[in-house]
Amino acid sequence: MSPYIAEFIGTAVLVLLGNGAVANVLLARTKGKGADLIVIVWGWAMAVFVAVYMTASFSGAHLNPVVTIALALAGKFAWSKVGGYIAAQMLGGMFGAFVVWLAYRQHFSNTEDADVKLACFCTAPAIRSAPHNVLTEMICTFVLILGVLYLASPQVGLGSLDALPVGLLVLGIGISLGGPTGYAMSPARDFAPRLMHAILPIPGKRDSDWRYSWIPVAGPLAGGAMAALFYAHVH
Amino acid sequence: MSPYIAEFIGTAVLVLLGNGAVANVLLARTKGKGADLIVIVWGWAMAVFVAVYMTASFSGAHLNPVVTIALALAGKFAWSKVGGYIAAQMLGGMFGAFVVWLAYRQHFSNTEDADVKLACFCTAPAIRSAPHNVLTEMICTFVLILGVLYLASPQVGLGSLDALPVGLLVLGIGISLGGPTGYAMSPARDFAPRLMHAILPIPGKRDSDWRYSWIPVAGPLAGGAMAALFYAHVH
Amino acid sequence: MSPYIAEFIGTAVLVLLGNGAVANVLLARTKGKGADLIVIVWGWAMAVFVAVYMTASFSGAHLNPVVTIALALAGKFAWSKVGGYIAAQMLGGMFGAFVVWLAYRQHFSNTEDADVKLACFCTAPAIRSAPHNVLTEMICTFVLILGVLYLASPQVGLGSLDALPVGLLVLGIGISLGGPTGYAMSPARDFAPRLMHAILPIPGKRDSDWRYSWIPVAGPLAGGAMAALFYAHVH
Amino acid sequence: MSPYIAEFIGTAVLVLLGNGAVANVLLARTKGKGADLIVIVWGWAMAVFVAVYMTASFSGAHLNPVVTIALALAGKFAWSKVGGYIAAQMLGGMFGAFVVWLAYRQHFSNTEDADVKLACFCTAPAIRSAPHNVLTEMICTFVLILGVLYLASPQVGLGSLDALPVGLLVLGIGISLGGPTGYAMSPARDFAPRLMHAILPIPGKRDSDWRYSWIPVAGPLAGGAMAALFYAHVH
Repeated sequence: MSPYIAEFIGTAVLVLLGNGAVANVLLARTKGKGADLIVIVWGWAMAVFVAVYMTASFSGAHLNPVVTIALALAGKFAWSKVGGYIAAQMLGGMFGAFVVWLAYRQHFSNTEDADVKLACFCTAPAIRSAPHNVLTEMICTFVLILGVLYLASPQVGLGSLDALPVGLLVLGIGISLGGPTGYAMSPARDFAPRLMHAILPIPGKRDSDWRYSWIPVAGPLAGGAMAALFYAHVH
Repeated sequence: MSPYIAEFIGTAVLVLLGNGAVANVLLARTKGKGADLIVIVWGWAMAVFVAVYMTASFSGAHLNPVVTIALALAGKFAWSKVGGYIAAQMLGGMFGAFVVWLAYRQHFSNTEDADVKLACFCTAPAIRSAPHNVLTEMICTFVLILGVLYLASPQVGLGSLDALPVGLLVLGIGISLGGPTGYAMSPARDFAPRLMHAILPIPGKRDSDWRYSWIPVAGPLAGGAMAALFYAHVH
Repeated sequence: MSPYIAEFIGTAVLVLLGNGAVANVLLARTKGKGADLIVIVWGWAMAVFVAVYMTASFSGAHLNPVVTIALALAGKFAWSKVGGYIAAQMLGGMFGAFVVWLAYRQHFSNTEDADVKLACFCTAPAIRSAPHNVLTEMICTFVLILGVLYLASPQVGLGSLDALPVGLLVLGIGISLGGPTGYAMSPARDFAPRLMHAILPIPGKRDSDWRYSWIPVAGPLAGGAMAALFYAHVH
Repeated sequence: MSPYIAEFIGTAVLVLLGNGAVANVLLARTKGKGADLIVIVWGWAMAVFVAVYMTASFSGAHLNPVVTIALALAGKFAWSKVGGYIAAQMLGGMFGAFVVWLAYRQHFSNTEDADVKLACFCTAPAIRSAPHNVLTEMICTFVLILGVLYLASPQVGLGSLDALPVGLLVLGIGISLGGPTGYAMSPARDFAPRLMHAILPIPGKRDSDWRYSWIPVAGPLAGGAMAALFYAHVH
């Protein structure tokens, strides 16, 4: 399988299972309506785990433009492939968001709250403030990228369980640093589904909150770059 | 152990532990009454994990007619054994459902709501609509079968932990795509226990909702077949 | 380390961490008061995991008289050691229960409900009925012992993670079959702590419910023996 | 990487992810506000897991002065390095606590309850009583250190998953023995963040509860030393 197709499929699965968890807990009349936070953080963790084990041997399972750029900055990935990887990831994220909408279509129709519908696509801050929100996204992405860079690489790609540590890393970050902004950490998980929210004919939807949209891009890019530089100098 | 006996035992354990979790959370006066969704999704995940590690080295641990058919479509399983596997799985699913009833018999008697009693055997949609419900079952089974096909096969069957990824895959699907229809994904988990519901002398039971019964068969078969074809062409 | 000392230590840790979870959720004024069922089932699962990895290489980590007897019946353990193992397990279970009381002593004093205090030592049925309660304990212990016998044995004792499957097996059983009787499955986890409840000077305690005490002994023994015989003939 | 830098980074990550989980559940207007106890105990477990896998191959991942001293007492670590390790751990704990404050700064401002703000830095007893609180901290740290000493050492440091058992050990201890005092078990997790609470300009903060501060130091040191001696003599 081509690494670009792998990145597309993996990111689609990641966003499908991740945003699907949000939809299950937030949308009206689902079986998971109102479930505890633990359900959402395990949902994203298993989304990462499944997407990574499916694609690790084909593309290295970046599944996030920030991971791709950080690996290139750390000298572990060729800059020539960065553009293609990011394009595949963004298209994958859009497609995954589309399938969440297909699977939960009746529940979108039955939900009144337009903010809740948007939350099934992209993040929003608990308390809106550009500098604070950027900082929090920087911090959580710094931990993500540093945690990815220190993964014991010889193990990755051999067996499916070798994809579990990165899933558990995302579980930990979600629990611990997701409180203020929802731990976007990736344009493929936030900007791409936000585009899909703008495109899809969702009844009673609000605008796609474009004024916030740059924060879960800029914060993660800054945090990821800092982690890559930190790793390169301290390691 | 014969692979057919292994499929019978494994599917019985799968349905016993899976539907047992539903019974614990939904039936009256249990110790788990009203527990959070996380309990049910971990219950099904561990049901899959235990059933798979017990039987992987004897039958390959299909435990689901859709898995058997998808593996045959993908050229990984002999068509000549498909009939026997499915028969063993359906009988196993019926037997597992019977044992749930034995273990929770007093709690079935103490439960008023006939829908809840049925829910301990088979799935029902959150919002009833044949096309939407079929589509959701197709989507979640597509992810299941694709996830199974991409499992790193050399590892399976060596140690018990090698059965964990498929359990975690089902955890992820349950959290993320179980909201609309309850992620049946298998006739052995839905149709077989439904038959047992019809047969057993449960006090105050309702009809077994036969008009819905074809959906958790047709949707999973379609989704599983699509995943097998997708895998064969994209891989 | 002598296998008997290992069984004592392991069973003490098992009961300490398991019953500690119950105490945290049920007793008055703890930090875990009223937490969801998921906390208790993970508590028992991790209790098993930790106790097993600590002792597997010294004694095989039976930690339960029913496991010891079932392994002897299945021809995998010498009958001559059965008595010593069981004695060590029962003493370990008593000691573990004693340490729970030490750790939560102020919370026992602040709890009014005498049933709750007893529940931190031993199980009680959700709906009292000797035949049904025995049957449920038989079923869950049958699954436990069958699950233990089918664990891929060459892996056990090599690395600490090899103890995880049996912990996850207990997680699954607790979620799925713990609803009616609280999945005692072991005299060392039920009868031994019950004795300690009778001995300790707990303020405002009730009687130790001796009329129920034979059920979490007889049911598990019957279920475990059936699993051993089933395994010996079907395997 | 120098082992001292590794201990600094690892302990910072440990406290950041652990106390971050507390902040997410307790502070006002977060996305995790009021979530179940299971979120906090998984947060600390994953904090340990991530911090250990990141640093195990550089420093052995002690990340806690009590672990360092206990390993020295058990003859597994050179006394000459103990001082440097502890200094690095305490500074790491302070820095991790500082980053929690950065990430949740708006939520600290929006929280009225000064006790809740302090709880995002260090532990407090559910029922205040020096002898009982010391005893509980001794017991839980005894289990921690014994559990660490019995980890199958040849596995540690090879793959990232080998860090999972110690994370799950902390999950079990948190569920089972965290009820009375919040399972501090480490001066780097309690005293160091408490210092940071005293230093930081948190609006509306209370005093840093110095009269309790010696208990999560003395109890863990005593419990850890007992575990090391027990291990040395019984093993």
